[in-house]
Parts: sequence; structure tokens; C-alpha cells
Amino acid sequence: MSENVVVIYSGGMDSFTVLHKALRDGKTVHALSFDYGQRHKKELDYAAAVCKSLNVPHKIVDISAINSLIGGSSLTSDIDVPEGHYEEPSMKQTVVPNRNMILLSLAVGYAVSLEANEVYYGAHSGDHAIYPDCRPEFVEKMSDVCRIANYTPVEIVTPYIKESKTAILTAGLKMGLDYGETWTCYNGREKACGKCGACEERLEAFRENHCTDPLSYE
Amino acid sequence: MSENVVVIYSGGMDSFTVLHKALRDGKTVHALSFDYGQRHKKELDYAAAVCKSLNVPHKIVDISAINSLIGGSSLTSDIDVPEGHYEEPSMKQTVVPNRNMILLSLAVGYAVSLEANEVYYGAHSGDHAIYPDCRPEFVEKMSDVCRIANYTPVEIVTPYIKESKTAILTAGLKMGLDYGETWTCYNGREKACGKCGACEERLEAFRENHCTDPLSYE
Repeated sequence: MSENVVVIYSGGMDSFTVLHKALRDGKTVHALSFDYGQRHKKELDYAAAVCKSLNVPHKIVDISAINSLIGGSSLTSDIDVPEGHYEEPSMKQTVVPNRNMILLSLAVGYAVSLEANEVYYGAHSGDHAIYPDCRPEFVEKMSDVCRIANYTPVEIVTPYIKESKTAILTAGLKMGLDYGETWTCYNGREKACGKCGACEERLEAFRENHCTDPLSYE
Repeated sequence: MSENVVVIYSGGMDSFTVLHKALRDGKTVHALSFDYGQRHKKELDYAAAVCKSLNVPHKIVDISAINSLIGGSSLTSDIDVPEGHYEEPSMKQTVVPNRNMILLSLAVGYAVSLEANEVYYGAHSGDHAIYPDCRPEFVEKMSDVCRIANYTPVEIVTPYIKESKTAILTAGLKMGLDYGETWTCYNGREKACGKCGACEERLEAFRENHCTDPLSYE
């Protein structure tokens, strides 16, 4: 029997690539998405559609109640999503306090309940500058605690943590993946805005792969 | 100005003692309770009443949505709460997958949003046998990751982690605390059952302190 793993799957291009990587690694994937009141809830619809077409079990857990604790990021509140380059100081407004530790600890709880020993998560080097909880030392220390916190030890698996978003896209294109099945824009409108930090970074990855993004932009 | 800290406060006797310890340490306390669908929800009413009388800001966050991920413990589901001694194998039924990492990661998120550098939490040695996430090595490794996960470093403070429940009660009685203001029983009925593992452990702590529990029992 193939090994059960949990994949944290936002519906964006990084975790979409990780999901496919886990499947190609021969794992039995349990996809997990979080509704934390993000304004780009559209990514969850994309996640659900992909899991359905792949016949992958998928849970969406509503954790928006925790915004009373950690609200104030422009991803969840009424602050405007900043435009411009991803590594600029304005992007700090998109930092949700302790976001990845919260999401990972829930995913690890889910893994323990499934007796799965791995949680896959799509951290990558492009996020290191802004998000401390996307850095390799965070993942290492998080793995250290997840190995001993329960009767079932769990490893945090981050296949692309040392790669750029461009390199993740290269890997996914090599697997023949269709990135029209992913959503990235921080604004949840009909079409992607093309201007927020997330869109900018996505479009840069496509440019650097000399290839056109199949998504429609405003 | 006194230092802001978050205290994870269940309404039980350990965290009640920790709450008072933090206040006596001169901290500005922000108490945090979790509604995770526990059947002993009564402890939350006890927590609210205590915070009100102490004029301590108190948040109760409903995280019961996560039971779809980590359900199956007798504390949250329809499995009967086991009777008998706290360290028996049957008590493993009360283990909620990754419970403390989830609660701590939320408390740390709250601390970061308050720019508080400490989270107080009432782990003690009596829980080490059954709950891996109450042991000192868990808390150390959790502190390691909480120091680097955000722009605000957060320490996990566990004043009683090497103490027994009896010693915590001794410390609280010395502070003059009234344990009639706390709730421990895993069954949430009118009076405490006196038979579940939690009641048994509580009553043992009172016996060992040669003192009578002010709570009423069935």
C-alpha cells in the first residue's frame, strides 16, 4: 500500500506543483486547504476542482474564526492589497502573524489522525525575504518539534524550499502541468489583477520560463 | 509600562495558577481560551468569570471547525470519557492529535499581533506520561521555532513544567487562590463526576496538600 501523506494545498501554483510531485512520488495524497477569510477565496475553488479531477480526497477547513486573534493583514482585512514588487517593505502588510506555524500544526494534527508521517508544503526561496516562516531554518525547527509532539512522528517535506518560483514552474512545466488550473492573485476578482505582488511574481516566473501564463488578466 | 503577555487559560486549576503567577510577575495579561468542542465547556464559563473579576482581557476563540481534521478524542466526540487513573493506557483516548502545538501556534499568533514576547502555558509533569506535547523537550523545541517564526520573537513560558499538579496546587494555595473558581472534570455536568482521570488527579492533589477541594462532587 502506498504511503499516506498530507499536502497543504492553497490552490496556488507552488502547492499545485507540490501536490503533483507527491503523486508522482507514489504517495496517497490527502489534500488540505484552509479558508482563513482570505479575500482571494477563489484559490479554494481552483483547489477543489483540481482535487476532484485527480480523485484526491480534499478537505477545506474554515479557520476564519481565528482572525479575531491574528487579523490585520491585508490578505484578510480591509487594508488594500499593496501593488508593486514582492520583496518591497509594503509586502510586509501581507504577513499574517504566525500563519505557517498555525497551518502546519493543523496539517500535522490531520496527519497524526491519518497515521501519515509526512506533510508536504510548498515553501520556496522567493518568500524568504518577507516571510520568516517560509525559511529553511523555520522548516527545520518545525520538523524538530513535529517529530516528538505526538505518538506519530511527522516530517515537514518542502521539496522546493531552496528553489525559486521560476524553478518550481520549470519543474511543473516539465511534468506537463496546466497552470491554468491555479489561482495566485491576492485580489479575488473575475480575472487576475496582474498588479499585486503575487501576480507580479507569477508573471515574472512565466517570463523567465519564456512561456505565457494561460490565466486571463484584467 | 508592564510587559504584555498571553496566558493560555482553559479554566482549569493549572492554567488558573499560571494566570495568577503571571499577574504577580507584574505582567499585563491577555488571557486566551479555546472552544474546541470540548464536552467540558463549563471550564470556559469558569475562565470568563475569573477574567471578569480580575479585569483581565479575555478572548475565547472557537476552533471547533478543526474537529473535522483531528476529531476522535473522547474529549470532543461521543466516545465515553474513561474512568480510572490518569496514567493508564485508557487515558490515551483523551489525546487530541497535535493539540498543544495547535493551541500554542494560535497563542503565538495572538502574541505577535499584540507585540507580546511571551506565551504562558500550564504544562506540568503529571501529563508527561500520556501527552508527548506536555513534555519539556516539546516545549524547548517549540520555543526554538517560536523565536524565529515571526518578526516578533516569542518565548513559551512554562513555570510549572517540572512540577507535579500537587506542587502547582501548593504554590496556588500559598498565593491564597480559591480553587472553587476552577473547573477540571472532563464531563461537563452540573457537578464534577469525581471519577474521570482529570477529577481523580485533581482530588489526589488536594489529598496530598491535606486540604479539601471547595468544588461540589456528584
